[in-house]
Amino acid sequence: MSKKVLIVGGVAGGASAAARLRRLDEDAQIVMFERDSYISFANCGLPYYIGDHIKDRSKLLVQTPEAMYKRFNIDVRIESEVIAVNPDNKTVTVRSKAKGEYEESYDALILSPGAKPIRPNLPGIQSTRIHTLRNIPDTDRIKARVTEENVKSAVVIGGGFIGVEMAENLRDIGLDVTLIEGGPQILAPFDSEMSSVLAKELEDHGVRLLFSQMVQSFEELNGEIETRMASGLSVKSEMVILAIGVSPDTSFLKDSGMEFGPRGHILVNEYMETNLKDIYAVGDAVEVTDFVNGTKTAIPLAGPANKQGRIAADNVSGLRTPFKGSQGTSIIKVFGLTGAATGNNEKTLQRLGLPYHVTYVHPNSHAAYYPGATPLTIKLLFNDEGTVLGAQAVGFDGVDKRIDDIATTIRFKGTVSDLTELELAYAPPYSSAKDPVNMAGYTAENVLSGRTSVFVPKDLETRDPAATILVDVRSEIEHANGHIPDSLLIPVDDLRSRLGELDREKEIWVYCQVGLRGYTASRILQQKGYKVKNLTGGYKTYVMANY
Amino acid sequence: MSKKVLIVGGVAGGASAAARLRRLDEDAQIVMFERDSYISFANCGLPYYIGDHIKDRSKLLVQTPEAMYKRFNIDVRIESEVIAVNPDNKTVTVRSKAKGEYEESYDALILSPGAKPIRPNLPGIQSTRIHTLRNIPDTDRIKARVTEENVKSAVVIGGGFIGVEMAENLRDIGLDVTLIEGGPQILAPFDSEMSSVLAKELEDHGVRLLFSQMVQSFEELNGEIETRMASGLSVKSEMVILAIGVSPDTSFLKDSGMEFGPRGHILVNEYMETNLKDIYAVGDAVEVTDFVNGTKTAIPLAGPANKQGRIAADNVSGLRTPFKGSQGTSIIKVFGLTGAATGNNEKTLQRLGLPYHVTYVHPNSHAAYYPGATPLTIKLLFNDEGTVLGAQAVGFDGVDKRIDDIATTIRFKGTVSDLTELELAYAPPYSSAKDPVNMAGYTAENVLSGRTSVFVPKDLETRDPAATILVDVRSEIEHANGHIPDSLLIPVDDLRSRLGELDREKEIWVYCQVGLRGYTASRILQQKGYKVKNLTGGYKTYVMANY
Ligand SMILES: Cc1cc2nc3c(=O)[nH]c(=O)nc-3n(C[C@H](O)[C@H](O)[C@H](O)COP(=O)(O)OP(=O)(O)OC[C@H]3O[C@@H](n4cnc5c(N)ncnc54)[C@H](O)[C@@H]3O)c2cc1C
Ligand SMILES: Cc1cc2nc3c(=O)[nH]c(=O)nc-3n(C[C@H](O)[C@H](O)[C@H](O)COP(=O)(O)OP(=O)(O)OC[C@H]3O[C@@H](n4cnc5c(N)ncnc54)[C@H](O)[C@@H]3O)c2cc1C
Ligand SMILES: CC(C)(COP(=O)(O)OP(=O)(O)OC[C@H]1O[C@@H](n2cnc3c(N)ncnc32)[C@H](O)[C@@H]1OP(=O)(O)O)[C@@H](O)C(=O)NCCC(=O)NCCS
Ligand SMILES: CC(C)(COP(=O)(O)OP(=O)(O)OC[C@H]1O[C@@H](n2cnc3c(N)ncnc32)[C@H](O)[C@@H]1OP(=O)(O)O)[C@@H](O)C(=O)NCCC(=O)NCCS
Repeated sequence: MSKKVLIVGGVAGGASAAARLRRLDEDAQIVMFERDSYISFANCGLPYYIGDHIKDRSKLLVQTPEAMYKRFNIDVRIESEVIAVNPDNKTVTVRSKAKGEYEESYDALILSPGAKPIRPNLPGIQSTRIHTLRNIPDTDRIKARVTEENVKSAVVIGGGFIGVEMAENLRDIGLDVTLIEGGPQILAPFDSEMSSVLAKELEDHGVRLLFSQMVQSFEELNGEIETRMASGLSVKSEMVILAIGVSPDTSFLKDSGMEFGPRGHILVNEYMETNLKDIYAVGDAVEVTDFVNGTKTAIPLAGPANKQGRIAADNVSGLRTPFKGSQGTSIIKVFGLTGAATGNNEKTLQRLGLPYHVTYVHPNSHAAYYPGATPLTIKLLFNDEGTVLGAQAVGFDGVDKRIDDIATTIRFKGTVSDLTELELAYAPPYSSAKDPVNMAGYTAENVLSGRTSVFVPKDLETRDPAATILVDVRSEIEHANGHIPDSLLIPVDDLRSRLGELDREKEIWVYCQVGLRGYTASRILQQKGYKVKNLTGGYKTYVMANY
Repeated sequence: MSKKVLIVGGVAGGASAAARLRRLDEDAQIVMFERDSYISFANCGLPYYIGDHIKDRSKLLVQTPEAMYKRFNIDVRIESEVIAVNPDNKTVTVRSKAKGEYEESYDALILSPGAKPIRPNLPGIQSTRIHTLRNIPDTDRIKARVTEENVKSAVVIGGGFIGVEMAENLRDIGLDVTLIEGGPQILAPFDSEMSSVLAKELEDHGVRLLFSQMVQSFEELNGEIETRMASGLSVKSEMVILAIGVSPDTSFLKDSGMEFGPRGHILVNEYMETNLKDIYAVGDAVEVTDFVNGTKTAIPLAGPANKQGRIAADNVSGLRTPFKGSQGTSIIKVFGLTGAATGNNEKTLQRLGLPYHVTYVHPNSHAAYYPGATPLTIKLLFNDEGTVLGAQAVGFDGVDKRIDDIATTIRFKGTVSDLTELELAYAPPYSSAKDPVNMAGYTAENVLSGRTSVFVPKDLETRDPAATILVDVRSEIEHANGHIPDSLLIPVDDLRSRLGELDREKEIWVYCQVGLRGYTASRILQQKGYKVKNLTGGYKTYVMANY
């Protein structure tokens, strides 16, 4: 007898599961329930449609119920909300717009209900001028505001990926945009010095940024809405986009006996099985294992959701495919810049008390002599054994490629030495003979081998001027253009002949512009018997950290 | 006492070794000999300078002898050719323009003499209208011809990387260009169907291509040179670029007792040590181990040369760093297209009798709904265990990234299942939720697991029409626009209802445009008891293979 599989949620995880399941099992009866009117839409494209980069709304609809039926023989039921799961009799309760409430039985059930925007219970929150963005109806509403109603100003609350994408896209269509962030930085996957580059790009494009501001209430005032913060600050705008994060959309499971994590995520094992027999869950609604540190986390991203959907289908069909955890690889376009990250950041490692080292490199996207080369910054985190723990990169070009290379290396539990050995594609338009990723590996290996010691900008706060000398090894002109206070200038090329000026009893802290000349200087000094440290990433990182 | 290290060759491998050695050993005496007047130049940039993409000649000079001295305290001796190596008394014989002939002793010797363009002894080869391209003087000569002498036409002989880059660059500055290739395809790292896409791009940009033509002689005729081929064909032009490959520049070693490979390459072990004590060799002049198949090969590319130079320096300093072999990752821009490859291609695997499977995918560079998405083609080669053996990709955008991801996977001896699990950076401007590399992995896994069987275009030549049915599962309009002869049209969405039309006794060969619908169709048919194969890569691959 053919198996009957129900799927809750018809977008990333759900539709992926349905399609894969049909390919694996031509005879299964597959029913996919979707609360809204649309399935398989491009969630990730919504901000770009609002920002008019995607002109054609129909492009957002990757699949339709009809096409899913025709291609995959899937019984797609839209406007059908699953309001309860009854594991004892293996049924779900459905509330359908067309058919009312009914029960449907299953042999296997795949849950991919996703996550919903958090809407805190603040005074004024019910204003129709306040929008969240998750699906097509949300998008249509916002799009109507900016086109038909010709809204000219917006406040975006929350500096996560969706908040920043919305700030950019609203700015792109000419709105006056203020972004309010509760914490001290935007884009949590990045550490603050990396995120500051992206913040600056927002500001350079006219987005007003407010940090460490807690929104307390809203009030509508003559066609505008005032967003009021705990600090006393307030901003008026015609529209508010609320993007302070998402929470798993799992309230329909509350009486099912399902086990949840601390923040309401469905708990699953590596086969995406929940604690309830024959019930699988995937996507934004589940807790996953952090691939790097092994703790539990939530990664509400489309790559994991689609992959998990496919894996759940495999396991419903008896293939036993594991999902080995998520490393949180993510990327964002911020106007001309790209920021990307993979693995753990410094904040996470510190929170978990995991020891790590850090290096920064600022290489060119491709050979400097070939037109169009632009600098990018890579921050690499690794442990004493050399295992790569995480990386973040920011730049104009080639950022995605380098983070993907490092993400791949992390997937193989690779080390910084592995990074040095990667044989990546080189011709002048694409890279350098030693790719930026190789470079990041070299600098890390040099730290681990003790060939060089490094310090980071924060260490300057506790530097003891009596016991250390801070030396700028750049050129005179670079020094004149800006330097770290209290530093002595000795250009690296003069260092060998000016060693006498340096007190052997003191520790020498050298720095240059990006870290390379400082490293060279550190090698000279170290071999001449000095205790020496080099500012990893150089003055450029110092400026990023002090933005 | 400090060590005295001599280096022969002052460019990619040699200069990299010198710089690294100084960083490792501040006290070593380092002498670098360079036959020409320039060190550390950007070999790889030379064609782009000729093509006026790099405007400023000085940009090609990455380092100068003076700067190398100042920064690294290296004794750089230009116009100094090492004409003999005398391992018994540990000296080299130098012929210096300034100082005449002299001997110099060494504790360690690093050889990075590179490879020189092959110049076959053909009638007329001594013409000054025939150029090869290796260094700055070559470049200056060619540049003078196209600027001062205003040459209007060129024949490029050889469709390797340098030949193709020269054809493109000469075309870019308006020359009439004919490229003559001795073999049936250009760009040997690619298999013919992949290379054909790049060939077409050359032709689309007005480069005339002649395949399987052996040049036999040259003759100067009234300000032109006629290139004559064995076939009787001849082409007149004002200039000839000869780029039929390189051979190791090692004749100065002939009496040294050095061991060479079959094509004259220096033999080294994984520490870049030659058979002669304290003599190391790196770069284009050495034979390396193929990282994938373990045989000996030569990879005359800058990435390996620079890395090996660094490794030789490590080992001179006693660090024992191994070079684990080269996988031949390479990339080329051909006008708007990019072609890249890593690992072994099909030709190599066939030559070595290594069993393999192949899949093709033609995904978009990034989410189709976000502007600017363009298709790319990935060809993936893997064995029965799923180990990735090689990949090639061609497209307008994102080709370098995907080949680098696969190159990284190969470095870790990863499998196609690893490719499916890679968590790569996704937002609409950069990729899709399932990255092209994931997709390549999925299709490969489906083949290995027996979920689908595939055929390749070549198999059509031996298809038995009596025992098989060829089915086009695309739409009517696609079929009408071109299809494989003798194919029956049944759109995939109609397949379930039209199964009766297919004879169960015959093997069904399905195909679609890129392979995806064909795969879906193959799953339906296979589960309904048919023997079925899908054309991997679909009609698009068929067209590539029949170009
Ligand atoms: C604006 C925006 C931009 C994004 N950009 C990116 C990006 O660039 N990169 C990236 O990786 N990720 C991005 N994401 C995240 C990505 O879209 C999600 O991670 C992914 O869609 C999660 O898949 P899912 O299947 O878990 O949930 P969803 O795709 O949200 O699908 C869940 C569906 O289930 C339905 N549903 C919920 N409960 C029920 C019920 N009880 N009964 C029936 N139906 C129900 C919902 O209506 C919804 O349609 C973005 C998300 C948004 C909103
Ligand atoms: C036009 C062109 C384009 C290229 N494009 C790319 C590309 O896009 N990507 C890529 O990866 N690779 C490319 N390469 C290849 C790359 O440049 C080489 O692989 C690399 O330079 C090899 O380094 P090497 O140190 O072995 O030799 P070289 O860099 O050639 O250096 C050898 C030096 O040794 C000197 N020398 C030789 N014999 C003696 C002697 N007896 N005494 C003193 N000096 C001596 C030579 O004069 C020469 O300067 C290109 C090469 C050329 C010519
Ligand atoms: C489109 C959607 C329904 C998934 O459908 P899908 O058929 O599983 O996914 P794709 O179209 O990406 O195709 C993947 C399948 O095609 C196969 N495939 C891809 N290219 C192929 C080729 N050239 N030849 C053979 N097979 C190919 C893959 O192997 C895979 O099949 P498998 O899972 O059985 O191994 C679902 O992803 C979806 O709804 N997406 C939109 C929503 C969304 O993802 N939102 C978040 C991102 S914006
Ligand atoms: C330039 C040249 C002399 C090499 O010099 P190099 O100093 O070894 O190479 P790079 O400038 O790339 O720097 C690499 C070093 O800087 C270090 N480095 C790079 N960025 C750093 C940073 N931000 N902080 C600290 N160290 C850094 C690396 O660790 C590495 O040092 P190591 O080898 O001791 O580990 C040599 O590559 C050359 O001659 N190139 C031109 C010719 C050529 O390569 N042709 C073929 C390609 S066109």
